[in-house]
Amino acid sequence: MKILVINGPNLNMLGIREPEKYGDLTLDELEKDLHAYSFELGINLETYQSNIEGEIVTKIQMALSNFDGLVLNIGGYTHTSVAIRDAISSVNLPCVEVHMTNIHAREEFRHVSLIAPVCIGQIAGFGANSYKLGLKALVDYLK
Amino acid sequence: MKILVINGPNLNMLGIREPEKYGDLTLDELEKDLHAYSFELGINLETYQSNIEGEIVTKIQMALSNFDGLVLNIGGYTHTSVAIRDAISSVNLPCVEVHMTNIHAREEFRHVSLIAPVCIGQIAGFGANSYKLGLKALVDYLK
Amino acid sequence: MKILVINGPNLNMLGIREPEKYGDLTLDELEKDLHAYSFELGINLETYQSNIEGEIVTKIQMALSNFDGLVLNIGGYTHTSVAIRDAISSVNLPCVEVHMTNIHAREEFRHVSLIAPVCIGQIAGFGANSYKLGLKALVDYLK
Amino acid sequence: MKILVINGPNLNMLGIREPEKYGDLTLDELEKDLHAYSFELGINLETYQSNIEGEIVTKIQMALSNFDGLVLNIGGYTHTSVAIRDAISSVNLPCVEVHMTNIHAREEFRHVSLIAPVCIGQIAGFGANSYKLGLKALVDYLK
Amino acid sequence: MKILVINGPNLNMLGIREPEKYGDLTLDELEKDLHAYSFELGINLETYQSNIEGEIVTKIQMALSNFDGLVLNIGGYTHTSVAIRDAISSVNLPCVEVHMTNIHAREEFRHVSLIAPVCIGQIAGFGANSYKLGLKALVDYLK
Amino acid sequence: MKILVINGPNLNMLGIREPEKYGDLTLDELEKDLHAYSFELGINLETYQSNIEGEIVTKIQMALSNFDGLVLNIGGYTHTSVAIRDAISSVNLPCVEVHMTNIHAREEFRHVSLIAPVCIGQIAGFGANSYKLGLKALVDYLK
Amino acid sequence: MKILVINGPNLNMLGIREPEKYGDLTLDELEKDLHAYSFELGINLETYQSNIEGEIVTKIQMALSNFDGLVLNIGGYTHTSVAIRDAISSVNLPCVEVHMTNIHAREEFRHVSLIAPVCIGQIAGFGANSYKLGLKALVDYLK
Amino acid sequence: MKILVINGPNLNMLGIREPEKYGDLTLDELEKDLHAYSFELGINLETYQSNIEGEIVTKIQMALSNFDGLVLNIGGYTHTSVAIRDAISSVNLPCVEVHMTNIHAREEFRHVSLIAPVCIGQIAGFGANSYKLGLKALVDYLK
Amino acid sequence: MKILVINGPNLNMLGIREPEKYGDLTLDELEKDLHAYSFELGINLETYQSNIEGEIVTKIQMALSNFDGLVLNIGGYTHTSVAIRDAISSVNLPCVEVHMTNIHAREEFRHVSLIAPVCIGQIAGFGANSYKLGLKALVDYLK
Amino acid sequence: MKILVINGPNLNMLGIREPEKYGDLTLDELEKDLHAYSFELGINLETYQSNIEGEIVTKIQMALSNFDGLVLNIGGYTHTSVAIRDAISSVNLPCVEVHMTNIHAREEFRHVSLIAPVCIGQIAGFGANSYKLGLKALVDYLK
Amino acid sequence: MKILVINGPNLNMLGIREPEKYGDLTLDELEKDLHAYSFELGINLETYQSNIEGEIVTKIQMALSNFDGLVLNIGGYTHTSVAIRDAISSVNLPCVEVHMTNIHAREEFRHVSLIAPVCIGQIAGFGANSYKLGLKALVDYLK
Amino acid sequence: MKILVINGPNLNMLGIREPEKYGDLTLDELEKDLHAYSFELGINLETYQSNIEGEIVTKIQMALSNFDGLVLNIGGYTHTSVAIRDAISSVNLPCVEVHMTNIHAREEFRHVSLIAPVCIGQIAGFGANSYKLGLKALVDYLK
Repeated sequence: MKILVINGPNLNMLGIREPEKYGDLTLDELEKDLHAYSFELGINLETYQSNIEGEIVTKIQMALSNFDGLVLNIGGYTHTSVAIRDAISSVNLPCVEVHMTNIHAREEFRHVSLIAPVCIGQIAGFGANSYKLGLKALVDYLK
Repeated sequence: MKILVINGPNLNMLGIREPEKYGDLTLDELEKDLHAYSFELGINLETYQSNIEGEIVTKIQMALSNFDGLVLNIGGYTHTSVAIRDAISSVNLPCVEVHMTNIHAREEFRHVSLIAPVCIGQIAGFGANSYKLGLKALVDYLK
Repeated sequence: MKILVINGPNLNMLGIREPEKYGDLTLDELEKDLHAYSFELGINLETYQSNIEGEIVTKIQMALSNFDGLVLNIGGYTHTSVAIRDAISSVNLPCVEVHMTNIHAREEFRHVSLIAPVCIGQIAGFGANSYKLGLKALVDYLK
Repeated sequence: MKILVINGPNLNMLGIREPEKYGDLTLDELEKDLHAYSFELGINLETYQSNIEGEIVTKIQMALSNFDGLVLNIGGYTHTSVAIRDAISSVNLPCVEVHMTNIHAREEFRHVSLIAPVCIGQIAGFGANSYKLGLKALVDYLK
Repeated sequence: MKILVINGPNLNMLGIREPEKYGDLTLDELEKDLHAYSFELGINLETYQSNIEGEIVTKIQMALSNFDGLVLNIGGYTHTSVAIRDAISSVNLPCVEVHMTNIHAREEFRHVSLIAPVCIGQIAGFGANSYKLGLKALVDYLK
Repeated sequence: MKILVINGPNLNMLGIREPEKYGDLTLDELEKDLHAYSFELGINLETYQSNIEGEIVTKIQMALSNFDGLVLNIGGYTHTSVAIRDAISSVNLPCVEVHMTNIHAREEFRHVSLIAPVCIGQIAGFGANSYKLGLKALVDYLK
Repeated sequence: MKILVINGPNLNMLGIREPEKYGDLTLDELEKDLHAYSFELGINLETYQSNIEGEIVTKIQMALSNFDGLVLNIGGYTHTSVAIRDAISSVNLPCVEVHMTNIHAREEFRHVSLIAPVCIGQIAGFGANSYKLGLKALVDYLK
Repeated sequence: MKILVINGPNLNMLGIREPEKYGDLTLDELEKDLHAYSFELGINLETYQSNIEGEIVTKIQMALSNFDGLVLNIGGYTHTSVAIRDAISSVNLPCVEVHMTNIHAREEFRHVSLIAPVCIGQIAGFGANSYKLGLKALVDYLK
Repeated sequence: MKILVINGPNLNMLGIREPEKYGDLTLDELEKDLHAYSFELGINLETYQSNIEGEIVTKIQMALSNFDGLVLNIGGYTHTSVAIRDAISSVNLPCVEVHMTNIHAREEFRHVSLIAPVCIGQIAGFGANSYKLGLKALVDYLK
Repeated sequence: MKILVINGPNLNMLGIREPEKYGDLTLDELEKDLHAYSFELGINLETYQSNIEGEIVTKIQMALSNFDGLVLNIGGYTHTSVAIRDAISSVNLPCVEVHMTNIHAREEFRHVSLIAPVCIGQIAGFGANSYKLGLKALVDYLK
Repeated sequence: MKILVINGPNLNMLGIREPEKYGDLTLDELEKDLHAYSFELGINLETYQSNIEGEIVTKIQMALSNFDGLVLNIGGYTHTSVAIRDAISSVNLPCVEVHMTNIHAREEFRHVSLIAPVCIGQIAGFGANSYKLGLKALVDYLK
Repeated sequence: MKILVINGPNLNMLGIREPEKYGDLTLDELEKDLHAYSFELGINLETYQSNIEGEIVTKIQMALSNFDGLVLNIGGYTHTSVAIRDAISSVNLPCVEVHMTNIHAREEFRHVSLIAPVCIGQIAGFGANSYKLGLKALVDYLK
């Protein structure tokens, strides 16, 4: 079983960006944690980060023949990107949307996700743990 | 560590109600699974179900001195109950909102949760597994 | 053929409440009329009234193995109760929504019914006669 | 007692138009049924159909001195015609609005009726039976 | 100078329709008054009434080579007819919109006129006198 | 018969302000024209102009015992002043709202008048002639 | 003179719930204060609290023959309960709506009250004192 | 293969109506061009124009047994006619919606088409050429 | 303790203006009553009325060094004045908003107050008594 | 070159009003600074402040023959005054809108300016410096 | 004559992505077809695809000196990209917007195109044929 | 002091793109002017332009350790980019938003800026001069 974790814009700033909201774990450390956890789950993991909407579209498309599922935290594009939504529909792979913060408790423009309707589900609000819960949810689903 | 799982209206119909959406596990079986899983997590679990909004309010209030956290799936009241939202604010215990279905992919009136802003986070779309992920998220948070 | 008629909040006030809008028939008298009429239609009738949303949910759930269809006038919950809507979906019994007044000609918040989309149809505006028309519509449908 | 039943645009297509929604009864057969039923109710019935909004306006106006009440299914004009609404107000005859389908469960633009506020009530969702229920409701009202 | 006065749906009901709102003058009497008044103004007048939107469209088109201006009270079509608006734009004749009642003080759907933006101006609220004021305004404008 | 004409903010700029929209008549000249016309109508006329919302409120209040009716062009306050609307309601004198331009064909925020619902009617779009039509309408109404 | 004070959901949590918003007076202490104050006003007082919407509906209905007026703080149901609004209309007793916090300065969904339109008036923002002001207002009104 | 081209209100004014928007080709000339073009495409063509909504409904209904597809430019009814939308659904023939102007670049009320959702597609903005493109698109589709 | 009561536009018309809504007490009589009541409360009272928004702004500003709190009924400016809201914020004195009528039960544009969010609280619906309740609330608050 | 700086309601409270938002510079000191700066720019400066909307309208009108341009901070009227907008259009002088705070980051009703569309541009968020930037921008524009 | 066809995000997935909606033609095959067709039309064709919004902006800019017109299917960016809209305005080349599916019959967020107002026209719903119709429309326009 | 000026999509088209709106200065010339001006201000300046949203995100992130502040004109992304807004929040550097045109006087979708709430302020409408004003505002702020 092979899973791809995609991080979108500004998640490369983890540990630097507003630590009172996002914690002081860096993206590097987070990805290491996820690799350790995926070992525990007995799966193959690849991680990817980009600030560019179109590159994320391309990455999702290329996942088609290489991965069994995706865990996505595409940051600010969550609320604006029809293109990423369409990419997920194209590849028709099971996706889980995750967010570190509880987007439902922040500014109103962060309450609606354009990509949630084409994912299996959404996990939001548990900090770095959201990713692990998302991985577990996806693995359970694939089994 | 003591956790309370509250199920709201119609969740007593699990296994009977729209099985193509909710699976054929009954509430009884689901609760048994959760007890097994809570054993695994090393925690104390209590489960509760009611169809009555005000009884759920009361149950949440009484949790104040007896529990360390709550996992809530309050069904249809998710989108309409200011009273349950206020109850959560009153007791100020960490809560995790869970849904078996991906509410963000269903009718528009199910996209907005009145209680999510007063919870740690929300997990939606993973069937009975949403509860386990919710429990795990809550336990990790409490640690 | 066995039919359940459910009356929601404030319908126990019939004859007392705003008689210029609802007439001076009491709920008791109305239910007697309906029993007489159901005799005429050759069906079995049970009537039920509650002011409590969750009790109505429970009553609908229990109708599953005991009734062939429901006639519902759930009063003010018509416009706010996702929980009752979900209960109807759970039991999957044919329901007819009735209202004594023409809700489409009253305050705007009474124009939209949350439960109409999960009923066969809606009858509104004919006073106590709305119930009889609803019963007849349901019986015709079941035949 | 003399009643006029008006059918609006596309109802002449009954039996041909989307039979999975409207059944396979033709308008001719429906009108025969209604005549039979009106005989049973002991009333005089006339039926009328037109695709043209302004002709329906005229027909309603001319009903003023010839009929005691109207049963109306004006199809697509239900949601857009201020002119027909005004015609009903002009003649001030009791009207019952009927629909074969449950308009409250279809596209959102079909949920609001411009003419319901000037009718006694609305009956929707019972196929051809909606007309009979409408006739009965009107006759009961006139008595 | 030749002016055409067009009355739309239900204005043939004047004197019969809701006299507390529209007065008890009939359309016939109103048109006679307008002919008398047009004599006073030294102009040629023609009057026309139809309940049918498309016939009003046609009448406006045919006005192109026969009239110098139009006074329009198209009743319920005021708020819904893009077709009549387009007809006025096509012929590019000066038009004055009149209403007997003060549409700005009635139901909200009567506040916005689709045809006002393609007319010189609007006169509303003065009963039968609105027509005379409209004629005078048009004649003054043409001079 | 004694009539008061009130002009609101910026109407003292007539002849200077955007002459392509408002013509080159000054307020002085306009008021002279209105006095001439009021002589013709056999009435008493007083004119008043202020840029200050509260002064217009006061002027309307003082009209109560001195005038039989008002013609109002309160410019930009038309769309924003609840205070002037309340003043008109207080004195309960017949008012006619006039506008030189066709406000229904300008920016959207000029389409809705807060004061029209408490006036007899509205006349808009006929330049300086709107005032004369308004005076005539008011005099006809008072007769 | 006999007055009923109804407290809705979560008001039994006074003193415990968000004390920085609601103060540290418990419901018990508050009710004692109100009884003392009612003695001062020379009236009879009864107090009632429930978390259940339908029980509040029933309590209001039963007030019909036993009380002269009501003071209501129905908490979260203020913004969602058509059923309680209808109950107030049914009994047609003078009601005063009170809130401890200034609901107009909180979240937007707390700005609109469904029950205010069927009450005499609303008092919001004065902590426990809101109840006393409400009692005084009701007593003055009944006199 | 037999195709019907329907033109709605005001399209009989082509060449006269706002030539800067619609060009100076008359409807007659346009229809001749279309006949020439249909000869080229090897199909049978009939053309029809009416200003009356209900006549267009009827014409569409009658197309059922006589035509293989329709090209429609129903002008102002595009944005308001539920009746024509229903007529298209009734006959279930492939339709192509065409417009001479780019409706998406005009007034906002012209941006949404009520009939587009029941057509194969929409072509807008290419003047008289829109019809030819529509014919070609329909013929290609039918092949 | 020194309190300022400010009345806004049209409140000088009390007793004259719509007495069925506002009672027949004049502003003079009301202010006398308030002075009597303030004597009872043991406070210093000043009253002020203006129809002019900017003068009310100035009066509020000047209250800064002279008063301990304000009771405000600014009439129609309640719903439109950002300037008065800002004035209240500037002086940072405790304010109580009062209304004689229940604004929540009147036209929709009267439901939202721009100044309530910067006041301690709002009292609406008790006629002249609203002022007394407001004074009492303010005095209790200042103690 | 002669420039007029107009300050609207509450700006006379600078230094007193919410100093954490507006700084502790008084209006007097600010105007002195601006005079010094205008000397530097080689221009003539006049300053004006009023709390009254209509006086600001009058001042703008009188600027027509005396000034080459205006710098405006009309405070709360920015979001509500059609009258001031019309005054600016009347005189057709180049205006620059300035705000000390970043209005786009404050309450939503402060995001939209009614007068920005008739100004050259807007400068917001730089405290007292906003005025200097505005003056500089205007002078550069006039050159 | 030289034309550029730009395909936006996910159109490189043609043949793979939701074939029931988009057909099984790959982008490669589509582009070959378009080259064949452009040969027929006697024009020069270049094709381009990118998933990245900003690259499409750049490509449109560079078209300024190299192409006579553009055919654009920018997929999900159609509904969200102000940047691409501005790019089209910058180069001021005639553009035709095409879509394979009938976007007006899909989710509501796909009904409005941000770029249609700066194109000649829009063609939607004819599968791969939409491109050919777009090319033909553009070539006819350029002639 | 080191400042970064970022230009977003289409600003590389300055001088070519709609010169009647943006002037005929090219981006090169503008940047030269800004360097000259920054010399005058005694600061270090770097300029950057990209059409790609994600590259701008990256550039802002990298500014964290290299610059003291930013001046941003991100063109069309101003109204749609949550990602750029989040990038600014991440680095927490003082930013000034500038626009050459007065965006408040253009299409409605350009009135709201998603990034203004996380900037110090906004300057719009002064052509190339907006940048200089922005630089000056930023430098003054940093001092």
